[in-house]
Amino acid sequence: MITQTQLYTEIHQQPEVLQRLLSQERPALEQLAAALRERQISHIVIAARGTSDNAARYAQYVLGALNGMLVTLATPSLYSIYQRAPQLGGTCVLGISQSGQSPDIVAVLAEARRQGALTAAITNQPDSPLARAADHVIALQAGPERAVAATKTYTAQLAVIALLSAMLADDAQQRAELAQLPQHVAATLEHGPRIAPLVERYRYMQHCVVIGRGFNYATAFELALKLKELTYTIVEPYSSADFLHGPVAVLEHGFPVIVVAPSGRMAAELDQFVQTIAARGAEPIIISDRQELLAVAQVPLALPAVPEWLSPLVAIVPGQLFALHLAHTRGYSVDHPRGLNKVTETI
Amino acid sequence: MITQTQLYTEIHQQPEVLQRLLSQERPALEQLAAALRERQISHIVIAARGTSDNAARYAQYVLGALNGMLVTLATPSLYSIYQRAPQLGGTCVLGISQSGQSPDIVAVLAEARRQGALTAAITNQPDSPLARAADHVIALQAGPERAVAATKTYTAQLAVIALLSAMLADDAQQRAELAQLPQHVAATLEHGPRIAPLVERYRYMQHCVVIGRGFNYATAFELALKLKELTYTIVEPYSSADFLHGPVAVLEHGFPVIVVAPSGRMAAELDQFVQTIAARGAEPIIISDRQELLAVAQVPLALPAVPEWLSPLVAIVPGQLFALHLAHTRGYSVDHPRGLNKVTETI
Repeated sequence: MITQTQLYTEIHQQPEVLQRLLSQERPALEQLAAALRERQISHIVIAARGTSDNAARYAQYVLGALNGMLVTLATPSLYSIYQRAPQLGGTCVLGISQSGQSPDIVAVLAEARRQGALTAAITNQPDSPLARAADHVIALQAGPERAVAATKTYTAQLAVIALLSAMLADDAQQRAELAQLPQHVAATLEHGPRIAPLVERYRYMQHCVVIGRGFNYATAFELALKLKELTYTIVEPYSSADFLHGPVAVLEHGFPVIVVAPSGRMAAELDQFVQTIAARGAEPIIISDRQELLAVAQVPLALPAVPEWLSPLVAIVPGQLFALHLAHTRGYSVDHPRGLNKVTETI
Repeated sequence: MITQTQLYTEIHQQPEVLQRLLSQERPALEQLAAALRERQISHIVIAARGTSDNAARYAQYVLGALNGMLVTLATPSLYSIYQRAPQLGGTCVLGISQSGQSPDIVAVLAEARRQGALTAAITNQPDSPLARAADHVIALQAGPERAVAATKTYTAQLAVIALLSAMLADDAQQRAELAQLPQHVAATLEHGPRIAPLVERYRYMQHCVVIGRGFNYATAFELALKLKELTYTIVEPYSSADFLHGPVAVLEHGFPVIVVAPSGRMAAELDQFVQTIAARGAEPIIISDRQELLAVAQVPLALPAVPEWLSPLVAIVPGQLFALHLAHTRGYSVDHPRGLNKVTETI
């Protein structure tokens, strides 16, 4: 029974995890925001791998657009293998990791501290090596995550970034919108039962691309990663702009393209993009709250309407369910994908 | 005749382009290096798309490891679509673009100048909108590039980054190593005729992955892009570390994995990686100067021995030739891939 898998259970725990996180981690994030303000830091460097790296992509847009922060994704091998670290003075270095274990990510935090940068860890394991290497620790409050593919810890990481943004901006509207988030995720999960029959069409799909841009660039990467981990499909994520700079050549008739296109400033750009690929015969699978766009999809995956900056927290949910059901219909283990362990340690 | 295509011609022009660039652009790069030193800038933000974005990835490692620069890849949509730019004060913002035309990249430079950041353009069109938006202009000296897939402008962009690094460090050894570069690229091209028969095996390959890390992370991305543009294969690039954090699940018996693994600090890590994937039955295609590693490859693509920081300039060359010959054997137009124009304008 798919409903008895860890993955199904953890996907459906997301509203309660977000509720707990938003109430319990506020003081820790208030302290981090205060430290950032006090030191007048406008530049954040993030070290992360896998799913956590996708949370870092979200931070680039949210902290950039709403807080004016310049956000850099770190190059961990410069710290761990080359041992020639860049200058980090005046920055805040953030490590994001569910397990807090990967030596390359810990190496970035350790060097940042050595250079006197402000450091913070966002992790589900507040007693991990990553947490011990950081000045500030934000716990994900997600409870144990047993399925190998991360779901609830991903949305919890996004929520930490969103809450940090609200604290930094000291913005009452942002806080009010965040408070609604657990309900929005619960509403998205209510569409879940419609997804199981839709995946049948993709039983033998060998490859596809996932498109998102701006706030949902992260969603494209995370959905592609879930499809790879769980269904072993070859899936590549792109921004709509990057896709047009070359990779668009791979499109042929019937090529499946998943487009993450909720309401917001990016909507017009993505509508144009859907027209472009549809004209070339690609098959659009669309994740959106906009009925007019869902109407042109081969497969529509509906979202509730939420403010654009929070849309990645709901937009990934139908993607998680799509990957879950597709893996299940292919007869794969959804909790223990081949070749993966829960904790990946890289140097 | 493949030898009469623009793409073949431009690939083989690379040694002379590099020779010309290294002699003619030295004064402009000396001025940029002086401006960076004078303003004590340790943080560079790069805006680029497609092939140029892969040159930016190279800059992250070279300017990081050899000059202590923190290098950020910009998020152009924050500037062009969201119009909520991050704080750029104290940075140098670099735009890289063959054509200098894409509005989103120009938007980043324009905003950087508005904020008072130092700006520079690296372009093959010194009269382009990008060049006009920048304080410093570095010309690629590549001559007209007519094939849609960029080759000589890519290696020219890498050479500009490498020369900037040598100027910033004021390092005689770096300069001496750079002076040898055109000969190394010419020596790599001499292996070219061996590649045509090797591609036959991959006539019906539908997907593969390309692995590089550190300095050659850029090479993995650029080789994947050439294969997508020219051969319409579904190809995804990864660092060896990122691949192990989830995507490794897609591997199955016979899965083709191209590994870029020249001599240097990263070699041991990649040797370990090749063992890991070979144990799972993947088929390794290896680009390296190391005979012992080439010996375990299904297809060995040999390089001359060059210093690691310059290895991306030679390591991409067999990749360019592999993509050229594979496109040719599939009967595709190598100069005008389907669905692409030479200049891509995105907002």
